[in-house]
Amino acid sequence: MIVTLTPNPAVDVTYRIGTHLPGDTNRVREVLRRPGGKGVNVARVLAALDVPVRAVLPLGGDAGRWLGNALDVPFDAVPISGENRTTVTIAGDGHPTVYTEPGPEVSEEEWTAFGARLAECVSGFLVVSGSLPRGASPDLVADWVGIARKAGVPTLVDASGPALLAAARAGAVVKPNQSELLAATSAADEAAGAAALLRLGARQVVVSRGADGIAAYTGHSVLTVPAIPDVHGNPTGAGDAATAGLAASLAAGRPLIEALRAAAALGAAAVLRPVAGEVDLPAYQRFLNGATP
Amino acid sequence: MIVTLTPNPAVDVTYRIGTHLPGDTNRVREVLRRPGGKGVNVARVLAALDVPVRAVLPLGGDAGRWLGNALDVPFDAVPISGENRTTVTIAGDGHPTVYTEPGPEVSEEEWTAFGARLAECVSGFLVVSGSLPRGASPDLVADWVGIARKAGVPTLVDASGPALLAAARAGAVVKPNQSELLAATSAADEAAGAAALLRLGARQVVVSRGADGIAAYTGHSVLTVPAIPDVHGNPTGAGDAATAGLAASLAAGRPLIEALRAAAALGAAAVLRPVAGEVDLPAYQRFLNGATP
Repeated sequence: MIVTLTPNPAVDVTYRIGTHLPGDTNRVREVLRRPGGKGVNVARVLAALDVPVRAVLPLGGDAGRWLGNALDVPFDAVPISGENRTTVTIAGDGHPTVYTEPGPEVSEEEWTAFGARLAECVSGFLVVSGSLPRGASPDLVADWVGIARKAGVPTLVDASGPALLAAARAGAVVKPNQSELLAATSAADEAAGAAALLRLGARQVVVSRGADGIAAYTGHSVLTVPAIPDVHGNPTGAGDAATAGLAASLAAGRPLIEALRAAAALGAAAVLRPVAGEVDLPAYQRFLNGATP
Repeated sequence: MIVTLTPNPAVDVTYRIGTHLPGDTNRVREVLRRPGGKGVNVARVLAALDVPVRAVLPLGGDAGRWLGNALDVPFDAVPISGENRTTVTIAGDGHPTVYTEPGPEVSEEEWTAFGARLAECVSGFLVVSGSLPRGASPDLVADWVGIARKAGVPTLVDASGPALLAAARAGAVVKPNQSELLAATSAADEAAGAAALLRLGARQVVVSRGADGIAAYTGHSVLTVPAIPDVHGNPTGAGDAATAGLAASLAAGRPLIEALRAAAALGAAAVLRPVAGEVDLPAYQRFLNGATP
């Protein structure tokens, strides 16, 4: 079982329009709504891989009710009084425009209930993925890693900024991308940044390098795998698919180098699908076997 | 009692942002949600004037549930299987950008139920205001005017295009703005357009001219009142406030010229308020008494 924790889930709305006219009225041709948030995407990819998965997330308001109805993976929702955020993506003739709501303020009592619920359901492997709601303390991430450790469960954290540092201090496997790593650690280069997170206490540091593949720092060694070349499509959600590949492999006790290969192949297989949280499974198998598109 | 009919109500969402960055990610600072649709705005202004009012509207989906909870005027909702539309207005550093969803497709059976509900609750005076959902026949407007007439109730219609022509044929008082009038009738000027609608059967044609005031064509005469000068603020919803002023006066049996004066004064009083559907009541009284801002 893999449990994915999404601290700030979202209703992801896409408006398909023709020519984008900022400062004017734009008639929307098609409305797409899907459950979003990085941990939700990770859970959907794991479910597609037939890995037993459970999503844990705070839900509140009309958006929370919608998310609860629309989620197609098993989940534990902790009720909050605030309303979950919505993101609106304008898909017109140019580069997409995105509007992101700030999300709910979650009270201390609600976070306490959230931690208690996590303690009840965590088992196997925990993935904490995505931003925290506004006002939430980065220490929450350390609390969640601690709750999992008490249950004998290792944790993989995909976060940025102070939450990434808190996850490292709490001894999680962390998975920043290169720019998140440099921003959080103020390091001059990737190796220095990874070393800083390992010094803080991170169990392993997995760095996604985009088109340059994935690297993993363990303190003893650096493992790297190249990206699958010549993959073109929708990069949104590719990082979440890579996280799912990493988590599935680590949860199954497979060697780190295999986990990196699975991550690279699943990330590429996600680029081939137009919707975040979906992967092209036959392509994933081909990429694992060394094929390219 | 005034009944307002809103064929295509909306959840009006406003996102306050800083600098608007099309093609990029925009963090929303503040989210405002309010029930919208022209007939809903008219009902809210009438309620503010202490005029007994009832809104009739089709509600469906999560947006419909939200509207039902948020509406602060008495209403009759006819359930539909589709989901009510949402409009998103981006209030940033430049002119507002608006995205309008197409709205639900309402089935023939649902429209039949809608007409039956209208027949049950219509009394006093009917206002039909705003666009029809996609795919809806303009003849529906004629049906509603006919249902009201059967109950001895006159109807004021604020619509455009084929729905405006259908309302005129059905014998309603119609209230287009100047450009809607010219577009629907293909007339060369306002007088010719109004004459065309009167020939079709319109009881009266009230034309809002923006900063140039309001005119009413009765077939025998043309009445005009000037706009309140030097009013600056938010023009969104000013037309709906003017419709409310017109409807309240006509429903009370007051002379047409008084109805036009009330419409001009209420429209100006709405411009002074930042939110559509609200009016500055003390300013309305001052404007009625001949004062200017």
